[in-house]
Amino acid sequence: MCEANAYIIRDGEEELVMEAVDKIEPEDDGLRLVNVFGDQKFLHARIDALSLVNHKIFLKE
Amino acid sequence: MCEANAYIIRDGEEELVMEAVDKIEPEDDGLRLVNVFGDQKFLHARIDALSLVNHKIFLKE
Repeated sequence: MCEANAYIIRDGEEELVMEAVDKIEPEDDGLRLVNVFGDQKFLHARIDALSLVNHKIFLKE
Repeated sequence: MCEANAYIIRDGEEELVMEAVDKIEPEDDGLRLVNVFGDQKFLHARIDALSLVNHKIFLKE
């Protein structure tokens, strides 16, 4: 599997918002995250950066 | 390894821009892509969506 953990960057700190993320899709004025277990989360954020070998997705509000 | 292929969506079609992407970072008014071989590419685009289990990153201009 090739999932990654999603972090929101707030005040320069990484805050974990969802583990094992498979899909991220734009929705309204934010993002819908879906993990490999089928859990979903909506966030008012955008995808800022990726570091996939480290399994990290960085979001910003 | 957990890299993915990056595609630009143009007119609804997926156009491969880089294989085996490790990192994507915001730079100026675009993105810098770095693959697992250390190759780099700059694109005037943003990250639109991810489908990591399918090893796909979707960019839009």
